[in-house]
Amino acid sequence: MLPSAIDLEAKLARIEEHWKPGIVAQLNDHHLKLAKIKGEYVWHQHSDSDEAFLVIDGSMVIDFREGSVELSPGTLCVIPTGLEHRPRADDTCHILLIEVAGTINTGDAQASDKTTAGEWI
Amino acid sequence: MLPSAIDLEAKLARIEEHWKPGIVAQLNDHHLKLAKIKGEYVWHQHSDSDEAFLVIDGSMVIDFREGSVELSPGTLCVIPTGLEHRPRADDTCHILLIEVAGTINTGDAQASDKTTAGEWI
Repeated sequence: MLPSAIDLEAKLARIEEHWKPGIVAQLNDHHLKLAKIKGEYVWHQHSDSDEAFLVIDGSMVIDFREGSVELSPGTLCVIPTGLEHRPRADDTCHILLIEVAGTINTGDAQASDKTTAGEWI
Repeated sequence: MLPSAIDLEAKLARIEEHWKPGIVAQLNDHHLKLAKIKGEYVWHQHSDSDEAFLVIDGSMVIDFREGSVELSPGTLCVIPTGLEHRPRADDTCHILLIEVAGTINTGDAQASDKTTAGEWI
């Protein structure tokens, strides 16, 4: 079977809930996930994986304890393993996430009904 | 030091040569690289890493021995480890590549003066 072309916009159209990433590809031991985010997330860190954010549409901010980074479309930020962060977006923002497969979205923060390692979309 | 926002367009502006990827970020044991491609590349495969192509601007084709996949902006393709492929583009195409750090661009094909695992840009 041939590898397929994965249309990120078409995959994003399948996502209804904010902060609920959908897995679109596996690359070695990593997953590529899409998400729609809006509002302020919880402070958390991931003990076992760096995490890449690439903004596709909209804009977002990643807060760190010592400052913030603003991301617009076409900008990327890699958060090192173990670094506390809080993503937020005033309006809906579409992002691509890359992290080790099985990494849960809320990291070390208390699990909630939104805690997930993502489902394939 | 805070993680930085990496502007892919600004990084692409630093790339002058086709088929010469520049590394823009490390994520765990993987590198994220940008490249400008044009023309037909060599057939090759990578023995130690899957390889993700994400088209940022332009269009490209990845040929496999049993067919081809066309990629336009915002589409992604993951090539499994060991699968022979040949990227090509009629006109200059800007891409993001993700693969294990140290993966060389020509894979198992004969090394040339363009063979590289990428340099940081």
